[in-house]
Amino acid sequence: MAETIRVTVWNEGRHEKTHEAVKKVYPDGMHTVIAKHLAAQEGLKVRTATLDEPEHGLTEKVLAETEVLTWWGHMAHHDVQDEIVSRVQARVLAGMGLIVLHSAHFSKIFQRLMGTTCNLWWREANEKTRLWVVAPNHPIASGLGPYFELPQEEMYGEFFDIPAPDELVLVSWFKGGEVFRSGCCFNRGHGRIFYFQPGHETHPTYYDANVLKVITNAVRWAAAARCPVAREFGNRAEALEALP
Amino acid sequence: MAETIRVTVWNEGRHEKTHEAVKKVYPDGMHTVIAKHLAAQEGLKVRTATLDEPEHGLTEKVLAETEVLTWWGHMAHHDVQDEIVSRVQARVLAGMGLIVLHSAHFSKIFQRLMGTTCNLWWREANEKTRLWVVAPNHPIASGLGPYFELPQEEMYGEFFDIPAPDELVLVSWFKGGEVFRSGCCFNRGHGRIFYFQPGHETHPTYYDANVLKVITNAVRWAAAARCPVAREFGNRAEALEALP
Amino acid sequence: MAETIRVTVWNEGRHEKTHEAVKKVYPDGMHTVIAKHLAAQEGLKVRTATLDEPEHGLTEKVLAETEVLTWWGHMAHHDVQDEIVSRVQARVLAGMGLIVLHSAHFSKIFQRLMGTTCNLWWREANEKTRLWVVAPNHPIASGLGPYFELPQEEMYGEFFDIPAPDELVLVSWFKGGEVFRSGCCFNRGHGRIFYFQPGHETHPTYYDANVLKVITNAVRWAAAARCPVAREFGNRAEALEALP
Amino acid sequence: MAETIRVTVWNEGRHEKTHEAVKKVYPDGMHTVIAKHLAAQEGLKVRTATLDEPEHGLTEKVLAETEVLTWWGHMAHHDVQDEIVSRVQARVLAGMGLIVLHSAHFSKIFQRLMGTTCNLWWREANEKTRLWVVAPNHPIASGLGPYFELPQEEMYGEFFDIPAPDELVLVSWFKGGEVFRSGCCFNRGHGRIFYFQPGHETHPTYYDANVLKVITNAVRWAAAARCPVAREFGNRAEALEALP
Repeated sequence: MAETIRVTVWNEGRHEKTHEAVKKVYPDGMHTVIAKHLAAQEGLKVRTATLDEPEHGLTEKVLAETEVLTWWGHMAHHDVQDEIVSRVQARVLAGMGLIVLHSAHFSKIFQRLMGTTCNLWWREANEKTRLWVVAPNHPIASGLGPYFELPQEEMYGEFFDIPAPDELVLVSWFKGGEVFRSGCCFNRGHGRIFYFQPGHETHPTYYDANVLKVITNAVRWAAAARCPVAREFGNRAEALEALP
Repeated sequence: MAETIRVTVWNEGRHEKTHEAVKKVYPDGMHTVIAKHLAAQEGLKVRTATLDEPEHGLTEKVLAETEVLTWWGHMAHHDVQDEIVSRVQARVLAGMGLIVLHSAHFSKIFQRLMGTTCNLWWREANEKTRLWVVAPNHPIASGLGPYFELPQEEMYGEFFDIPAPDELVLVSWFKGGEVFRSGCCFNRGHGRIFYFQPGHETHPTYYDANVLKVITNAVRWAAAARCPVAREFGNRAEALEALP
Repeated sequence: MAETIRVTVWNEGRHEKTHEAVKKVYPDGMHTVIAKHLAAQEGLKVRTATLDEPEHGLTEKVLAETEVLTWWGHMAHHDVQDEIVSRVQARVLAGMGLIVLHSAHFSKIFQRLMGTTCNLWWREANEKTRLWVVAPNHPIASGLGPYFELPQEEMYGEFFDIPAPDELVLVSWFKGGEVFRSGCCFNRGHGRIFYFQPGHETHPTYYDANVLKVITNAVRWAAAARCPVAREFGNRAEALEALP
Repeated sequence: MAETIRVTVWNEGRHEKTHEAVKKVYPDGMHTVIAKHLAAQEGLKVRTATLDEPEHGLTEKVLAETEVLTWWGHMAHHDVQDEIVSRVQARVLAGMGLIVLHSAHFSKIFQRLMGTTCNLWWREANEKTRLWVVAPNHPIASGLGPYFELPQEEMYGEFFDIPAPDELVLVSWFKGGEVFRSGCCFNRGHGRIFYFQPGHETHPTYYDANVLKVITNAVRWAAAARCPVAREFGNRAEALEALP
């Protein structure tokens, strides 16, 4: 219960180097903003990792010491090596939590874990969005109001090509006319996955108190299986009951 | 996180008075056995209540001070007053957890919350059962092996007339040839409900370490919504956005 | 497959008698509009029933001859006799389909089958709504576009106090800022239930081609279990396998 | 409704060439047995395809003309070319049904669509199994009794490393002491997937009337989205509502 949760905040980190508009909002990368907030929460121990580090910063050792991984990517999904994707997938199935942020809907790791394209409709129009709680007793909604607003975000609209979530926590309204399943829980293997829609790189979304609350809650939710049933499979040649 | 969870262990408590075979196993009632175990767990504060107390021991005050209620009933389901059933239902929808044990599948409160008959097949043959974990990362399975056995239990078999559980944690095998969805999670309103199959009154089931572990885990799971979104409904006459 | 589906279109039918604004839109009651459309579809045989008929038009005989029942009610939910509600509930659990329309979210029969309050937020502001398909391969969405619009409807907003639907087909956007799970599938017992949000009594919603398509699709979906497994429960005293 | 469903029955087809015990049960391959049964059903048009044909018999043209594909594989999963797996995956997401049989739980296509290992426990002991219906109103259970038995099958046991099924239809009991989620429905993209456990190559499982009934029902269920919502994604640069 009171055990420390070790979180690795992963970021592609390219926009922040190449786009002035992004650099202005996240001068040290959006991972540092997310990591700083999480590190201030009780019981969380946080590190960061980025695409351009060796092995993308996701060595076997780092993953073995990570209970929950958060993932933001956009312009360089294809630069993520397949071998690292397989490594992360195996670690999720073995019990690591994964928080998939915004444009990471199109990351290799999310597509791999979902089995679908994870495609959707989008629009960059700096429009208002309002995220509604549809599962008010879910730990990820803890401390929220019935909804919260972001004055400017990228629109993501349905149909969102994902499997039906195991639990649907948030549904978004967009000023331009769309809706979106914006807070989605999945169980895969022994791991837990949360997809969370907000986070366009030119908006200060990861400074928003409600967004940070959701991410923090999601980290705790994804780390909840602290003493899971062992992950074993294979030939049980000897029956548990006498066979004729 | 570290807040105390107040648990009320409710028992019909009739078999223990009238049936010698039950009295022998549970001389002080099965509620005392369950309550004693829970009271020894960190962070749980436990009281008991029984059918034959005034208001069945479930006054407004008691329920207001209860985060999780466990319920065992069998021979006297119809002696539970409808008014108390409505009170418990309202409290569950407002956020109280409810753990429904064994023959309480036919309790008024479980039928009321499910909307179905909750009927099933059964057999009293003191047969072996083996409960398999089908959601190994679920908090309710925490600390279990891939399965656990009870040497003697009443058989409950499919079709079990419940809504599809929001999460299915345990499936039982019975020596006599049946299977049963024996550990089922439901969200209703702001409350969480767990149905757990074992617990025939003539067997020492509630002394079993695995059974007690599941009940303890379920109590913690059902109490998880500690800071829920407010439960409000009604006329929002003024729109959130300007209307033409 | 080609068997006839017998549909009973039930309507409270009070607004149409007492409110001029409703009378103007539905001079013969909204049930006649819905029934006329359904009766023109291949393989559907349709009758109507209303609150003010004896037994609300829902005799044992009528229900026995009904594969799918549609239900609209609003101002007189409490005039529906509990005995008839129990009768309808039993018939749904035995396999009849039920299509719950608009303000019937607060009908006794829907509350009974859900186990929750079915409460929500609402606003009468004649505002625009857009219904998005979030399950594009679901039979109920067959023939729809990615979304459809209604120029004027009553707003229903989240949180909608229902169990998580077994399948979520439609999510609504409202001009005034809300979202709503507006097309929800539930299995209860051997029956199938579909809740569909549009249908405010002062708007010509039930003349809309898309609304009628959804209702028609829902009727076919709800009638799909044409050769169900028998509904039997009880004591299986003799084990299927030899017991020691 | 009455439209023809074009089914392609795919088989690895290796055991039948190399193992005498299999050759004896399925002299012309198990695909011919399944295909012959399906071809005799109203409204089904059936062809077969096998691993050793060019492109495994699954050309773009064949898949384009297939509403439902059934898949059996075991000893040669790795001989299936990744390019064909991607082609089948894309076709499933675009709406084709997929029936995954027995040891095909470990096929590349099933793992790809699930995102998990699809691993499990197994035992070859010619033991009795009993498949219980836990969703009696599901079209795939149509015409079955409350359960059916197979005198000899390979045991598959939990934990089965799949995402929680969207609908769970069958749960198996095995004589040797295990249970298994043996009939599982999934929606992925616009496609529908059904996993069905029985079918060990040395047993005459695909001659069994109940097994064939389930496969036939599953084919009809998987083909149900006959007029789906279009599969479109991308940039909706122009908002549906005026933006400030």
